[in-house]
Amino acid sequence: MLTPYRMDTNSLYLTEQLNLLGVDVIFKSVVGDDLRRLVAAAQHALFRSDIVIFSGGLGPTEDDLTREAVAEALGVSLRRDPEVLHGIEQRFASHGWKMAPNNAKQADVLDGATVLPNANGTAPGQWIAGQFDGREHIIALLPGPPHELKALYESKVHELLRARVPPAFLAVRTLRVAMLGESHVDACVSPIYKRYTDVETTILAGAGEVELHFKTRAATLEAAQLRVDEVAGLVEDELDDAVYSRDGQSLEQIVGYWLQMRGATLAIAESCTGGLLAERITSVSGSSRYFLGGAVVYSNQLKTELAGVPAEMIERHGAVSREVAAALAEGIRYRCESTLGVGVTGVAGPTGGTAEKPIGLVFHAVAGDHGTEVVQRNFAGDRKRIRRFASTMALDMVRRKLM
Amino acid sequence: MLTPYRMDTNSLYLTEQLNLLGVDVIFKSVVGDDLRRLVAAAQHALFRSDIVIFSGGLGPTEDDLTREAVAEALGVSLRRDPEVLHGIEQRFASHGWKMAPNNAKQADVLDGATVLPNANGTAPGQWIAGQFDGREHIIALLPGPPHELKALYESKVHELLRARVPPAFLAVRTLRVAMLGESHVDACVSPIYKRYTDVETTILAGAGEVELHFKTRAATLEAAQLRVDEVAGLVEDELDDAVYSRDGQSLEQIVGYWLQMRGATLAIAESCTGGLLAERITSVSGSSRYFLGGAVVYSNQLKTELAGVPAEMIERHGAVSREVAAALAEGIRYRCESTLGVGVTGVAGPTGGTAEKPIGLVFHAVAGDHGTEVVQRNFAGDRKRIRRFASTMALDMVRRKLM
Repeated sequence: MLTPYRMDTNSLYLTEQLNLLGVDVIFKSVVGDDLRRLVAAAQHALFRSDIVIFSGGLGPTEDDLTREAVAEALGVSLRRDPEVLHGIEQRFASHGWKMAPNNAKQADVLDGATVLPNANGTAPGQWIAGQFDGREHIIALLPGPPHELKALYESKVHELLRARVPPAFLAVRTLRVAMLGESHVDACVSPIYKRYTDVETTILAGAGEVELHFKTRAATLEAAQLRVDEVAGLVEDELDDAVYSRDGQSLEQIVGYWLQMRGATLAIAESCTGGLLAERITSVSGSSRYFLGGAVVYSNQLKTELAGVPAEMIERHGAVSREVAAALAEGIRYRCESTLGVGVTGVAGPTGGTAEKPIGLVFHAVAGDHGTEVVQRNFAGDRKRIRRFASTMALDMVRRKLM
Repeated sequence: MLTPYRMDTNSLYLTEQLNLLGVDVIFKSVVGDDLRRLVAAAQHALFRSDIVIFSGGLGPTEDDLTREAVAEALGVSLRRDPEVLHGIEQRFASHGWKMAPNNAKQADVLDGATVLPNANGTAPGQWIAGQFDGREHIIALLPGPPHELKALYESKVHELLRARVPPAFLAVRTLRVAMLGESHVDACVSPIYKRYTDVETTILAGAGEVELHFKTRAATLEAAQLRVDEVAGLVEDELDDAVYSRDGQSLEQIVGYWLQMRGATLAIAESCTGGLLAERITSVSGSSRYFLGGAVVYSNQLKTELAGVPAEMIERHGAVSREVAAALAEGIRYRCESTLGVGVTGVAGPTGGTAEKPIGLVFHAVAGDHGTEVVQRNFAGDRKRIRRFASTMALDMVRRKLM
């Protein structure tokens, strides 16, 4: 985790879980495989916090020092647990291998710790609760690989924590908004959420999407839920139909939901988004029920061949035009016999922009029974961001059409 | 950064840059907006390290406490810099706004610090080099938003660091490998890289791709480069044509390179990858020179309509079959008049698997002048991972065909 290569996802996962139990995360640190530094980091953490979770460093190599460091920081000894050792030997035997001697250290357990069996790896987790430095502490050692850590947290650590942490009646609600800027959203809704000083509001923005998180605690779960629902409800009224989800669903899922609700099907013809729009729609499991497919029409010839756009229309108006966007939507709808057709054409950059048709110019069209709607936008940002914006815009147009 | 929502990318970027200067990162910590905790974290960092970089907490709100905390940890005072203040006021004025009073604190500068102008935001960075606790230190305060931090690092901090850090003759090389498992790659090449005890080797794996990083220092840059090139060369010989890039290019870029080298064009018809394959190809700027487009043929009807797969073939063999994969590749090639055609069909899950055609079964086909090649694979993992695997496999087949 001290290399430039690995994104830290474990701490985000654990933070989410701990917050749900009403536990605030006040410090995270990443330390190298150095015993002296690890012991110092463990001591500081124990001094600072009531709950300390270590992840990683439970492997069999000489760089795996978490057990030793925590033992030293707590002033307890390690003992080799024969049952754990037997389990590790068994695990190797089941693959037809003999356990290498260095693996034995994975059976070293902190004095007083409970072993947390790890179904997905050789290194078990450990849990220890007790007085250190005259204060009650909870300490967990979890494996580093995210799928092992997550499985162990779900199967064991969550229950152990819940039994020890004072019950927190904590409620959260997430609203998601499409195609409004973060500062615009904040300007609209901050007068509302600022009145709720007991509710913690977080606003996060991506290309074309804004997330609002509301979190509060109260004397009962019902009271907390009522409180976040109240502020979320007022914010939703203010933002009106720009809010597309209230329970964490993605825009792709919401579009799928509405298509199924309406018994409708969708086909798309996309140029500058280059497959991203189809990829987002089909990332939802079960999307084959409403998504028929589509065409990625990068070349002008394919705009004609696969989506039926007349070649002379492309010649007259250019491939990036209101007319071609509409023709793509109508053509693919006709070709695929879908309820709705979507067309996207634009300049994603970094090359290909002109004074008349600059980088970021995108035309989005949705064709249906009652005609075709075309929206022009000029997005700022790099190729990746422009493509993301354009795909979000197209999804949001479909959503609004179906609502 | 103590919420579950934001991925830490700043520290990865800074680590990469620092490593290139020969600086090892030994500790990272994330602290909340609490002055006491921030001061303690800054003091520990100064005690531990020669270079300490802070990011974030330079904004105008009362939660932005990095300036105050570092001043206290260093035992220096803050002074309000009139020139910086003027710049902030100008920035507001240029948008037609009046600066709110709380923004003035962004002009507070540590005594002895150099101001680093921030072209992308109001909060300037700060740089201070000198003796603290009787030891030379370098301290930088950088803004939190990644694009501001990166621009400031590139424009100022890099040169300042390079002038102060002892020159490190450090060379790196990255090999990328497609469609071989991490453990297989490691088993093949660890006998080689283990002989180079002066070269640090890191192996990273994603779905269908493995990256090998080699890094070393030597008395001269040439000697270091020769050393990593030597080990990388031997590893490459061992892995043969599974290595697709030597300079960090992505598989998508390499496929584009070969298509251009051969004066060839590509069209694709994809089912289970749902647009991902097209999206990956078109993520490369300039891909319109060799990528014509393709069809996302989710429904069987579209496999026939857009890619010309005979309906009775689908009926006889099923949509997920060797025959349909080949017909997709051949049909889209014919339809688009491309040099090569690619077809992908499979079961991405989590539903739709059967005993005969389980989740993870994918057929990949590449059609060209000299016939059609089909490869069957059974991928493990969830929907996202299976789609990623299948798209990588298809790209790698195109690469091999062109080499």
